[in-house]
Amino acid sequence: MEFRLDPWGSEVIREYNKLFKFFGIKPFKEVLKDLSRFVEPHMLMRRGIVFGHRDFEEVIKALENHEKFAILTGLMPSGRMHLGHKMVIDQVIFYQNLGAEIFIAIADAEAYAVRKLGRSELIRLAIEEYVANYLALGLKTKNLHIYFQTNYSREYYRLIQLFSRKVSMAELRALYGEDLEPGKIISVLTQAADILHPQLKHFGGFKVVLVPVGADQDPHLRLSRDIADRFSNELGLRRPASTYHRFMTGLDGGKMSSSRPESYIALTDDPEEAGKKIMRSLTGGQATAEEQRKLGGHPEKCPVYEVNAYHLISDDRELENLYWECRTGKLLCGECKARTRERLIKFLTEHQRRLKSARELAYKVVEVPDF
Amino acid sequence: MEFRLDPWGSEVIREYNKLFKFFGIKPFKEVLKDLSRFVEPHMLMRRGIVFGHRDFEEVIKALENHEKFAILTGLMPSGRMHLGHKMVIDQVIFYQNLGAEIFIAIADAEAYAVRKLGRSELIRLAIEEYVANYLALGLKTKNLHIYFQTNYSREYYRLIQLFSRKVSMAELRALYGEDLEPGKIISVLTQAADILHPQLKHFGGFKVVLVPVGADQDPHLRLSRDIADRFSNELGLRRPASTYHRFMTGLDGGKMSSSRPESYIALTDDPEEAGKKIMRSLTGGQATAEEQRKLGGHPEKCPVYEVNAYHLISDDRELENLYWECRTGKLLCGECKARTRERLIKFLTEHQRRLKSARELAYKVVEVPDF
Repeated sequence: MEFRLDPWGSEVIREYNKLFKFFGIKPFKEVLKDLSRFVEPHMLMRRGIVFGHRDFEEVIKALENHEKFAILTGLMPSGRMHLGHKMVIDQVIFYQNLGAEIFIAIADAEAYAVRKLGRSELIRLAIEEYVANYLALGLKTKNLHIYFQTNYSREYYRLIQLFSRKVSMAELRALYGEDLEPGKIISVLTQAADILHPQLKHFGGFKVVLVPVGADQDPHLRLSRDIADRFSNELGLRRPASTYHRFMTGLDGGKMSSSRPESYIALTDDPEEAGKKIMRSLTGGQATAEEQRKLGGHPEKCPVYEVNAYHLISDDRELENLYWECRTGKLLCGECKARTRERLIKFLTEHQRRLKSARELAYKVVEVPDF
Repeated sequence: MEFRLDPWGSEVIREYNKLFKFFGIKPFKEVLKDLSRFVEPHMLMRRGIVFGHRDFEEVIKALENHEKFAILTGLMPSGRMHLGHKMVIDQVIFYQNLGAEIFIAIADAEAYAVRKLGRSELIRLAIEEYVANYLALGLKTKNLHIYFQTNYSREYYRLIQLFSRKVSMAELRALYGEDLEPGKIISVLTQAADILHPQLKHFGGFKVVLVPVGADQDPHLRLSRDIADRFSNELGLRRPASTYHRFMTGLDGGKMSSSRPESYIALTDDPEEAGKKIMRSLTGGQATAEEQRKLGGHPEKCPVYEVNAYHLISDDRELENLYWECRTGKLLCGECKARTRERLIKFLTEHQRRLKSARELAYKVVEVPDF
């Protein structure tokens, strides 16, 4: 029997077909081998969770030529940071260790104008809930730039003003829908500035900027690529590269989402409580133990398997064992959950120990807006 | 016979009726007496050229209470600076001498995004054609802040982001028309930030900000007043005060406009050439000298009279003489033009002498954007 590190392959193609077919996103596995010439690819890559890319060849070239490159990611300071958010930061840390300079935009302007959150609360959330967890996960402060969208430099804001000349309402509507209020318009142009600004001389002049995102973020990449083309002469901008990863399934079967606490494991969940969430989780098992022993389970449809494959089991062989124990009916859901619970409690306990000192550091690596 | 320093009174009411009737702009003459308790009002005010205001009482109160106040004005760096533009700066200098702090926004973001001008040309124009002329006209560098919209501070840009939350497309369309592209939307929010930012602590915390404008600029004031109300708690903003002045009639009878060189006198016109423009100008005279002697001329319809009343004759008695010499048919257009030509050549010659040193200074008072 062939082991499938990527049991979601066919589902990904079905789910994200439009991205492949209409928007020119290419399978990530095509560049996996090239990347492995420089470093062992991250487990999210090896396992097909990072499934697609645009222009990742540019990153390979930068590695080949020992050229500097940058990673841009963003965070929306609303709700608590959960395992779904952790996936992005794990990749960012991987690239940082590979030599990339890291830019992290705190989307407080968008949180305020579009999601209508209060200023002081979202500033606190951004630092204590997100940035602190990033640092505790292993993000290093060297070559790291974390900024609030409302508290950055004029060169960044100038991009928003310049971009507005060459973007039409018609194309924004095509990308983001008909209902575009001023807050949304400024927000999407701000995101284009987030993605493209590391290329400016003022910010280091990086010519390769890679943006690892969930598949739902692709409209921002498409807009940024078009804008880069339109400003290639005037500002010397080039298209950003991007990778795409699957969403995490929530423990209740939907998307893992901050709005439903039972769907996610937060990095600051009490470990015992988090363990209980695992025990209550939906699985890919059969209706009865008897059927499960006979037919085997469906790890590819199991949120508990995902928690292991995305986060808790870094060794491919160990994950392979889990997969087959489940598929062949040897391992029942109760036992699998109990093991997962142990792994999770261990991870969270260690993480939260690191988090204490990270909180203090978090306030030092970001400049907090004063109103 | 009663002298009318303001021969345009009834025309103003007809022309700007909508402003008075629907938008609550009040006659400036109602506050003229209050102002004269502190200073002799500027000739543009005494003569009814500044004809309307909103909340000018706030300026009077600031003067009474020895509180600081600020003036905000903007310039669009396109075309050459002409006598129509000079009217605004004459008022700004008047308020500066009265103790006001001066903020001048160079609308280069708007010039680039909406008018689609080139960056380097508009930067050069802004400094050499506008700022230099302002300084030569007598604007002092003390308590003066001139900034490019693309090159200011984060507190200013933050306002644009915050404002976008509480402004709807529907109200922007009502103010600016249906055809709103992203460049225009960002531009009008930027203008609201121009008008309101001097109230922020970072910029001096001025609670009275007066914006002297031509009547066509009122939509920006209406938007800024609404935004101030919506951010009165969150940011402590108050409505700006404003005054409204008549347009200058062009020498060819239309509006004085940069797009028609024959319509304007530029501050950098060769004095002799400018004199010729006066000699070729339309007037308020009769068809023949004979009729003019019999019926008298119409100074209130005469662009040459305007050049004198708005710019060249500061003494009210002297202007009064001119008015009656024309009205009674004693002074014919040829002779009046010849005298005006002399005054203009004298003014331009002296101004252009001052302009030489002002050009150098202009590059020192403004920070020029680097891309």
